[in-house]
Amino acid sequence: MTMRAAVLRDRSFSVETRPMPVPGPGEVLLKTRLCGICGSDLHLFKHAAEIARLGEELGAPAQDLTKGLVLGHEYVGEVAAFGPGTAQALKIGDRVCSVPFLLKNGAPAPIGANVEIDGAYAEYFLGTEALLLRIPDGVPDAAAALVEPLGIGIHAVAKSRIDGNSHAAVVLGCGPIGLAVAAVLRMRGVETIVASDFSTRRRALALQMGATLAVHPREASPFAALSAGRPVVVFDCTGVRGVLAQAIRDVPVGTQIVVAGIPQGEESFSPMIAIAKELNLQFVLYYAPEEFAAALDAVAAGQLDWQPLVTGTVGLDGIAGAFAALEDPEAHAKIMIDPSSDARL
Amino acid sequence: MTMRAAVLRDRSFSVETRPMPVPGPGEVLLKTRLCGICGSDLHLFKHAAEIARLGEELGAPAQDLTKGLVLGHEYVGEVAAFGPGTAQALKIGDRVCSVPFLLKNGAPAPIGANVEIDGAYAEYFLGTEALLLRIPDGVPDAAAALVEPLGIGIHAVAKSRIDGNSHAAVVLGCGPIGLAVAAVLRMRGVETIVASDFSTRRRALALQMGATLAVHPREASPFAALSAGRPVVVFDCTGVRGVLAQAIRDVPVGTQIVVAGIPQGEESFSPMIAIAKELNLQFVLYYAPEEFAAALDAVAAGQLDWQPLVTGTVGLDGIAGAFAALEDPEAHAKIMIDPSSDARL
Repeated sequence: MTMRAAVLRDRSFSVETRPMPVPGPGEVLLKTRLCGICGSDLHLFKHAAEIARLGEELGAPAQDLTKGLVLGHEYVGEVAAFGPGTAQALKIGDRVCSVPFLLKNGAPAPIGANVEIDGAYAEYFLGTEALLLRIPDGVPDAAAALVEPLGIGIHAVAKSRIDGNSHAAVVLGCGPIGLAVAAVLRMRGVETIVASDFSTRRRALALQMGATLAVHPREASPFAALSAGRPVVVFDCTGVRGVLAQAIRDVPVGTQIVVAGIPQGEESFSPMIAIAKELNLQFVLYYAPEEFAAALDAVAAGQLDWQPLVTGTVGLDGIAGAFAALEDPEAHAKIMIDPSSDARL
Repeated sequence: MTMRAAVLRDRSFSVETRPMPVPGPGEVLLKTRLCGICGSDLHLFKHAAEIARLGEELGAPAQDLTKGLVLGHEYVGEVAAFGPGTAQALKIGDRVCSVPFLLKNGAPAPIGANVEIDGAYAEYFLGTEALLLRIPDGVPDAAAALVEPLGIGIHAVAKSRIDGNSHAAVVLGCGPIGLAVAAVLRMRGVETIVASDFSTRRRALALQMGATLAVHPREASPFAALSAGRPVVVFDCTGVRGVLAQAIRDVPVGTQIVVAGIPQGEESFSPMIAIAKELNLQFVLYYAPEEFAAALDAVAAGQLDWQPLVTGTVGLDGIAGAFAALEDPEAHAKIMIDPSSDARL
């Protein structure tokens, strides 16, 4: 048994025939229904070697990148087969999503982020049964595939100081994470949500998804629109080097900056200014499993406006074109991969 | 009427005869009993021009540094005369300390930090009556002069996540602020307090003032001594560039780093590492007035071990020598200035 998979090697995708994955103990074979292209996939596309090296510095095992990476962790799968030792409370054909980890000896190992565990840019992939969440009937595949980035938004807001409408919020960068953060802030009752992005289309999407004001950062400071008195939480969702240092200069006294994007390389800033303003910096990554589940509940309950985020769908052969298209923020926000389709952009 | 004052100009002190300050409305003339030399005084000694420039960037008025700076904000004064419109609940001769600000049109303006408002490196200086705290009988002058740095310790710990013994603590740098933080952590019930400093004497002082372990950072990582499981709060009290970036690399996942020292210049770090560990950075400055008062209460109640901190006393003519001596951490920690003395080191 074989399947098709899009393999990333040396900044290039090729669709290859690979053996069908075999579920191990506690694992389930999943047929990919839909998989979103994540900003971190774009980062891995460009910086796989640097990210692998930094991972090694932090204690991860060395990787042989010549094997090729099968990305994809924002997935909706369909239960296709059960491995040994599974409880099988789910049925064949059930739609599922999950936090993008396999449990290996009880510890989470990321799916679609390194050469060890292939992701869902393929017809089939593996999941750990204990982590799978059944997608309620009536929830579209695309909504369920957005649970992962929306979970990141839920986590970023939960790790912030925001409690209801306690703070004004500023969202820097209106990529999928910034848009998810704006939608979650709206859901949480924040009444002032200023979004900032260079792209006209992204600013329009931010207003659709929850922002109350959207500014072009070269035309207006997002902080100028805030009224004094209410404390501020800034979400840096740009992933762009230098934005944090600039925010440290520009934000009001007592602001919290939540760093939700992942800038490459070193960031340089003036501690004296951060001290003079008693700033707080919270760096965030992923979500807790219950935050992921809360995102699924929120889309199922219609509490999160996810629809504007999805701007295109491609098959496996369309991935290279989709990655190129995502370089232009005017063109696309979130592109979905449907391995059963032969669509290209 | 004239008085003697130590004036800082171009990295040099000279003791000059100046007019006796005249208290304005709501102000009190204070006779200096004792004034501590603060780390920020040492910074101003070396970096007055840069600090003035950064202040201007943040909106402070431009300064004419040729006028000369009279430093000194860790003071114990004696009420010598009242200005117009004062309530005079205090009596002439009462000992007082206060947050180091004058109220100017209701807004706090720092004492002894710029050319506008002279500090207590002089026989007399001015205070705002509404801010003065009477020092209880039996509290030594030296203890009261330490209320300011101890207040910084109370504030830094209060702005951290620490609640009782909820976290293990690491204190980087055992200057007066690091030592104050260690003493406050002990007072707050923290049971694991690892202090780190290159100086043998400073490590010994840390153990006297509250640390449960003191390490030389080149011989042992302060984080290696921590048991896993309990979350960590690190207090960077070094004021040294590069320490924060190193801490970001070395601390365990989920750590909060409280930046209580004031490093000059730019700091460069890797956001990806901070994100991978979901670190929180809290920058702190000064204290709230109630935290300053809490420090006075704590020394009056004998809850804070302040005694080891004071390592010398000089007169106004001994200030230049004291600043030189404070360059060597083996020699001194906190030196007090007593304008009625002619002591030198």
